[in-house]
This record gives sequence, C-alpha cells and structure tokens, in this order.
Amino acid sequence: MQTDESLSELFEFLRFPSISTDPVHATAVRDCAHWLVRKLSQMGLEASAHPTPGHPVVLARSPHQPGRPTVLIYGHYDVQPVDPLELWEQNPFEPFIRNGRIIARGSTDNKGQILAHIFGVRQTLAENGSLPVNLIFLIEGEEEIGSPNLGPFLEQHRKELACDIVAISDTGMVAAGLPTFTYSLRGIAALEVFLHGPDKDLHSGIYGGAVANPVTELCRLIATLHNTQGRVAVPGFYDGVRELQPAERAAWSGLPLNDTTLLELTGSPVLAGETGYSALERTWARPTAELNGINGGYQGEGTKTVLPAKASAKLTFRLVPDQDPAYVIERVSRHLKQHCPPGVRMELQAGHSGKPYLIDPDCNYGRAARRALARAFGGIEPALIREGGSIPIVSSFRDILGADTLLLGLALPDCRAHSPNENFPVENFIAGQKLNRELLRELSVI
Amino acid sequence: MQTDESLSELFEFLRFPSISTDPVHATAVRDCAHWLVRKLSQMGLEASAHPTPGHPVVLARSPHQPGRPTVLIYGHYDVQPVDPLELWEQNPFEPFIRNGRIIARGSTDNKGQILAHIFGVRQTLAENGSLPVNLIFLIEGEEEIGSPNLGPFLEQHRKELACDIVAISDTGMVAAGLPTFTYSLRGIAALEVFLHGPDKDLHSGIYGGAVANPVTELCRLIATLHNTQGRVAVPGFYDGVRELQPAERAAWSGLPLNDTTLLELTGSPVLAGETGYSALERTWARPTAELNGINGGYQGEGTKTVLPAKASAKLTFRLVPDQDPAYVIERVSRHLKQHCPPGVRMELQAGHSGKPYLIDPDCNYGRAARRALARAFGGIEPALIREGGSIPIVSSFRDILGADTLLLGLALPDCRAHSPNENFPVENFIAGQKLNRELLRELSVI
Repeated sequence: MQTDESLSELFEFLRFPSISTDPVHATAVRDCAHWLVRKLSQMGLEASAHPTPGHPVVLARSPHQPGRPTVLIYGHYDVQPVDPLELWEQNPFEPFIRNGRIIARGSTDNKGQILAHIFGVRQTLAENGSLPVNLIFLIEGEEEIGSPNLGPFLEQHRKELACDIVAISDTGMVAAGLPTFTYSLRGIAALEVFLHGPDKDLHSGIYGGAVANPVTELCRLIATLHNTQGRVAVPGFYDGVRELQPAERAAWSGLPLNDTTLLELTGSPVLAGETGYSALERTWARPTAELNGINGGYQGEGTKTVLPAKASAKLTFRLVPDQDPAYVIERVSRHLKQHCPPGVRMELQAGHSGKPYLIDPDCNYGRAARRALARAFGGIEPALIREGGSIPIVSSFRDILGADTLLLGLALPDCRAHSPNENFPVENFIAGQKLNRELLRELSVI
Repeated sequence: MQTDESLSELFEFLRFPSISTDPVHATAVRDCAHWLVRKLSQMGLEASAHPTPGHPVVLARSPHQPGRPTVLIYGHYDVQPVDPLELWEQNPFEPFIRNGRIIARGSTDNKGQILAHIFGVRQTLAENGSLPVNLIFLIEGEEEIGSPNLGPFLEQHRKELACDIVAISDTGMVAAGLPTFTYSLRGIAALEVFLHGPDKDLHSGIYGGAVANPVTELCRLIATLHNTQGRVAVPGFYDGVRELQPAERAAWSGLPLNDTTLLELTGSPVLAGETGYSALERTWARPTAELNGINGGYQGEGTKTVLPAKASAKLTFRLVPDQDPAYVIERVSRHLKQHCPPGVRMELQAGHSGKPYLIDPDCNYGRAARRALARAFGGIEPALIREGGSIPIVSSFRDILGADTLLLGLALPDCRAHSPNENFPVENFIAGQKLNRELLRELSVI
C-alpha cells in the first residue's frame, strides 16, 4: 500500500494554497495544476493542463480501447479561503496528522479524495499494466467558485470527454466505517444585494433621522426572506420542490446521523429551521435562503457615529429537485425589489448557480457503485442518502455529456469542509484507493 | 488679522492624525496635545497637558481676578477616523484650500473652531495685555470616542475648573453668513450587539437549514427596532420625550435649511424617517435608533458558501430632552432579549452615552452670546436652532460644574464633519476669532 509514500505525496499536494476565489493565489493554483499533471504523467496517463479564462483544467486519460465502458472521474484541486485564520491550530497549508486525521485546508474537500482515486489507478496500473475500463480524469481548479469555466470546457471538449458514467468523491459518509451512496444533491443560486443610501457616509447626529440608513434597510429586507416557521417567504420559491417520500424519511430516521449528532457537529445552541422536518431532512431535501456575509458601515475598533452610505449582503439559495436556479433568482429579485423602500437604491448581482441533482440508486450504475463501496469498507451495506451541498457540475455532465454521476463520498461529518481545521481520516484515504480499484472493476462488467 | 500666519498654524494643527478611537494613532494624539500646550503657553496662558487613562486633556488659564466672571471654552483636538480613505481627494492630513474651504480631517470638527477661539484670545492679549474675563481653555482628546475620561477629570479638577459659563464652537450654522445659536443637543447611547450561532463557520450546503444563521437572525432582530412609520418600536423608547413646541416648528419652517437642502446635503435618493415631522424636526428634536455598522460572514472577493458563526452590529441612539440614556439602553436591551431566537446566543455591550441638553435662549448668557454672534457676522440676527449631534460633555458641565453651555457653532451644513473631504471656510475661521473677542467682552458686563 506504500502508505507513508502516498501520504507524503498528499502533503505535497496540500501545501499549495490553491484558493481559487482570491486573485492573490493565482500562481499557487497554477502550480498545483502542474503538480497534478506531473503526477498523472508519471503513472503512465496522457495528462495536460488546459488553460481557461480562469484557472486551468487538468485532464488525463488512459489508452482507450473500443468495446468497454468509459469512466470519467471528476475532482477539484482548488480550495476554500482559510479565514478566520486565527481559529486554525496551525498554518492551513502545513498539513499534519493527529488522531488519524490529516489536518489542512483541502484535505477532505477535495484533494484527499481525488488523490485517493489517482493512487487507486496508479496501483492498478502498477499491478496489471492496464485498467479494466477507459479512464478520464477531469480535475478542475474552480469548483469552490462555482466552476464558471468548466461548462464551456465540457462543451468545447465534448468528444474527448465522451463517457458512459461519471464518478465523484466529494460528498460525505454518514459515519466512520459506513460507506455511503449519495443519490441527490442540492443546487445553488448566488445573489449579492447592494443598497445605496446617501452619497457618502454621514454624521449620524447631524443627519440621523432624516434619511434612510442602508444597513437598517438591508436588515429589514433580509428579514422579509423568511417567515416565523423558518420557511422562505418569497412567493414562488417552493415551485417545483419534490416532497420527500415516506420511504426516504423512514430510511433516514434509522441512520446514525440525527438531530443529536447534527447539534454536536454544528456547535449551535439549538437546532433551528423549517418546522415539520428533521434537521437531516432540512439539509438534504429542503431548500434554504442563506446569508453568507453582510457588510456595512464602520467595523473597526470603538465607535464611529456614521450613517453609512451603503450596505451589502451575499446570499446563496440551496435548491432541491426540481427547483430551477434562474427561476429562483428571478422570484427573489422580484421580491426584493417589491420590498425595497424608496430611501435606498438597490443593485442586484446574480452569481454562480447550479441545478439540483437526482439519480435512481437502483439503476445498474448505482448498484455497481454500491457493490464497490461495500467491498472498500469491509462488506458493509452502503447507506443511501441525499446531500445538502451542491456540485453544480453534476448537472452539466448530464446536460452536456449525457452521463449520470455516481457520488461516492469519503468525508466524515466532522471533517470540517470549508471550516477551520479541515481534516481527512488517513483510513479513508486508504479506503478511497481501494474503492477506486473495485469501482473500475465493477463498472467494467456492467 | 495676520490671516496667512494663522492659517499656516491651523495647517500645522491639522497635520496631526489625532484619531482617538484607534490605538495606532496614540502618539499622534499626544503630539497634537503638546503642540497645543506650546501654542497656548507662547501667548501668555498657563498651559499644561494632563495625562488620563486615555488621551491627555489640555488645560490653559489666564491670570484670574476676583469679581469678574469666569468663562470656560471647551473644544477637542481629536478627530474621527478617515475611512473610506479612497473617497478623499487628498491625504486627509495634508490640508489644502479650495474655493475658500480648508479641506482636511478635523478642519471643522473641531480643530478649526477651537483654534479660532485660541487666536481670538491671542489677539485680545496682544492688543490689550489682558482679557476682560477670567478664562479657562479645556481641550480634550477623546470627544470622538465619547469623552470617557473627561467626566472623572471634571470631578477631580472641580475647583480649578469652577466657572460661570461654558462656551463651545462645535455645532453648525444654518447657512453661510447666518450666525446661529444652538439651544439644544441630542444625547447619545451606544450599544453593540453580538450574536453567536454555530461554534465555527459551517458549510452552508452541508448544514444550511438545520441551524440558525446569526447574520439572518441579526437582521431579523434589527428589523424589529422600527415600525413601518419610521418610529422606533421599542416599548418605552419615547418615554420622557418633550414634544416640539408650535413656536419652534414655526421658526424652523422659515429657515434657509429645509427638506430640499437636506436632500442635497445628504445625497440620498429621497428623504425618509418618522412620519409627521419635517426632516429638520426629525434630526433636531426626534430620537433615532441608528445602525453605524454591521458585520458577519465572508466579506472578501467572490463567494464563500459559509453559514457564519457570528454576526455583530454597532448601534447608537440619538436622544432628545428629557430621555435618559441608561433607561433607553435598558429598554432596548430588554426588547432585543425578548426578540432573540433560541438558535443564537446574544451578547450586548453598552458603549458611551451622554444626556440630551436644553438651555433657554432668552436667559442672560443666551442674550449675551446672541449679541456677540450678531457682531461677529456683520450685525445679522442669529437663528435659534437645536442640533442633531451630541456633545455629551455639555451635560457633565451642568452636572459637575453647575454651568450652562453656550453653543456657538461655526460649521456650515456642507462642511462634511465625520465624512470624506471634511472642510471649513476660511471666512468662518476669521469670524470665529472675532466672535471670541466679542463674546468675552459681552460676558464681562453681564
């Protein structure tokens, strides 16, 4: 298994601060892509980094043989920002191991998981000289900013990327040792709201009371987004939402992930949200309107008695099948415009978006994936779940390449993706390599 | 008049970045105090800088003679922060003159105004060798942070500071050339609200929907502070508010400062605020609940799909006679606690406060001040107004020294106090010196 060797290679991968959202890190993102190309070439794949208007896409392929299925494995080498930095135990880009966990930004999301697949392929090639399927690795550097250039890239390389099925390890396991097959993802739609009031910051004594305060008005606008039952109060927001099936609710109620574990994982005072649903149901199968950030006026030490000139909020909506992101943004924009008072001028800026996703877990590919998962994790029957996160590109694979996606996540609930002290279990890094080998074998005989 | 000389001295004074709220500027604040002490000593006053737990207080006094009134002139040498810096035409601490205005942070609030008084005294001393009254200058370095150490300083130096009347030029004129006597100030009470949700920033996909979002909850809390008529919706908030007198409303409606000028000055899309009052009435005689800043979650470039761990807002309440700051903070705190949902933990931190102020403009001191104002401005009868800003120390002068305060402001409505490109008219700098000379003479014969 050469664990020590493969771990030190993972550490090299993790040391790149490949934060895609911040232009300051553009060089690190590019260097990280080239590291991957070298790694994939060295194991005998035909690998290259393709420039895009943003960060490069890494492609690698095995020699293709007609008459056997083509499997595309997707992952990403970019990572989330690291702030608040002071909550990290160590430099987020200096990985270390404690209690069997690799701690670093990107360890679980997604460097640890994609590298497990790469090393699974390397082992098979080393042992057998060839793979049982035609294989394509597609590893992008813009997943954390909504993959703005991957859709066009798929369109341009549609022929090269033609495949029968896609596999991704970028989702979660229900619990340690319990393999998990995810058959649905939430979609996402981002919207930034800017309110402009006075044309400069004003003295809140001299002018306070005479003009609208953009921060106050922004709060009042945001407050119209939910009702007192935790439901989104935007007319039309729930159009197209598939209601949860009784069988899903029953299956999930028996999982070792429940309200108690979610309360522990989040560290919140209590759980909250839409009435009538468990916390799992709310995150996996109900849409949300979430504030990711708000900003306005003086934020430094002490007091500054200003009436701020402007305020802004970053919103994302998590969507479930069969909501449509463009429709949701249109309805929310209309709602905000209706509620915006005349004292401020509103500007709306739609951001990235991605459709929600659903696959039948009992289709042939689903069954093959579940067998591979079981074998990678000591014969344990996989849990069938949905997932609250969004992987917008999954819908693009379906729309552009005509291929469904198998979501075979290796992250544990406490791996802290997007949070300080993100981590990934060493044992899952090893199990992921086994999963890859079993998966390619299962898919070769469908 | 030695205008060029006195202007270059004002420029020296303005070059100190004496921002009291930011510890980074502590040395500049202290150097500025010592510059003042040198200036006051050179003109023949007994001057010194008194250390406090914060920034020094500058005191200066003329030789006191029994049997004549003692006048205390108060001002401050500290200034507001300068952000957003990019909106300044030049470095805020490199003063320059354009169209008769001195442009620099502190030019109007309060360095230009207090230095006019100092130079008025210097002229009288140079011409007459003595002053017609006993004079005390009290110039502090913490006005912009709520004068936390001046109250205790007044208590400790009660005997030294004993006086009959206080004069301050730190308020506004209704229009250029129209001298203005301000007989009321709003008070202030500051409160910072912190909401804590999850114990770390969470992935908004994985956990969004299951726990309360502190930014959303903060917005919902803020939205409870006002009703749809622009009134503060906190029970008890208006307790003690003196209703505006018909005579005041009538007098103000004839001023050259009105809704149209206020709309221009603020650069807001439209005026807004409490229904039933003009914009002037709202700022001069009605209390407010104002957001000075809000902060939570990701604020950088691009998107970060977090569910933030915490959010906070800086609030100040502007109060009118006879509201009590402590009572208001107590009522607002109770209101916020009642509306705080269980999904977040709230922390409240009361900041500085100051009582509102009112003096009868027809008392002897008021009449003397109005005569001096008229003479300083070519014989024009002063307007009688209130003021929306707060000078909390005015209540302390009344409570601790037993002295009322004459508010003889020299700032014009477009002097942009607290805003980028703060400025002060050269002609008001000169008129202020004349005002000081006329005022001391008028007060000497009461």
